[in-house]
Amino acid sequence: MAEIEWFDDLRVGMKFKTASWQLAASDIKRFAWEYDPQPMHLDEDAAAKTIFRGLAASGWHTASIAMNLVVQSRPFGRHPIIGMGVDGLRWTAPVRPGDVLDLEGEIVSLIPSTTKPHGSVVTNWAMNNQNGELVYTFSPITIVPRR
Amino acid sequence: MAEIEWFDDLRVGMKFKTASWQLAASDIKRFAWEYDPQPMHLDEDAAAKTIFRGLAASGWHTASIAMNLVVQSRPFGRHPIIGMGVDGLRWTAPVRPGDVLDLEGEIVSLIPSTTKPHGSVVTNWAMNNQNGELVYTFSPITIVPRR
Repeated sequence: MAEIEWFDDLRVGMKFKTASWQLAASDIKRFAWEYDPQPMHLDEDAAAKTIFRGLAASGWHTASIAMNLVVQSRPFGRHPIIGMGVDGLRWTAPVRPGDVLDLEGEIVSLIPSTTKPHGSVVTNWAMNNQNGELVYTFSPITIVPRR
Repeated sequence: MAEIEWFDDLRVGMKFKTASWQLAASDIKRFAWEYDPQPMHLDEDAAAKTIFRGLAASGWHTASIAMNLVVQSRPFGRHPIIGMGVDGLRWTAPVRPGDVLDLEGEIVSLIPSTTKPHGSVVTNWAMNNQNGELVYTFSPITIVPRR
């Protein structure tokens, strides 16, 4: 496959795969203390009494890990990934201590700007855990420069 | 206003306001190293050469700060805020070092579950900076127990 570098190199249907990320209980708690201080994310005993029945990552922690994995996979080449927004953000299963997470993505929309030297890319990303269970989906709208 | 505790206490059109959060350059960089390692979030000099023309927070950092402010404001009373997903997530302006951010929210949809003792709440949240500039919107879909 030719190197992907510009909006013009992208095609609808192109697929991507990221590396994986293993999550520790200590990371879940540290993120939660700073950004989502709720019992199901902070403490095993308190979490056991919630509908999660045990410690689970903040959904925003899951989303942030997904961003890291997507950035490291460089789907659009050397250009920074500049997001305008996200559609279809859904948390579909709890993310637990020890889970190993990775993502697969597919480009579903490519719209060149009529006024600026870039285009807008929509990619459907799906994050699975080590059991192949879908835990998170999101479809970021990203700006990529044209050649 | 009566205390909000259950889904049944909520009404479409109810409005909320959060406390505020001041963001430091060091926080922007620390979040970015862990979750969004790109030049516009990591380093002033590198950021100056991007379309951001200076250091800006990762959008996922902004989203995580918003979650903290919403959690602390307890819009649905003592129950944890359990999110199924988010619609309408848009980053509308860069978030800069020193910015002071707060949010206003309004309930736009209340759908009781037909099978479970809870309901689904959609709230439109808008985050502004200290100049009244809109920087971020999101509409989380949240599960709240019924009385």
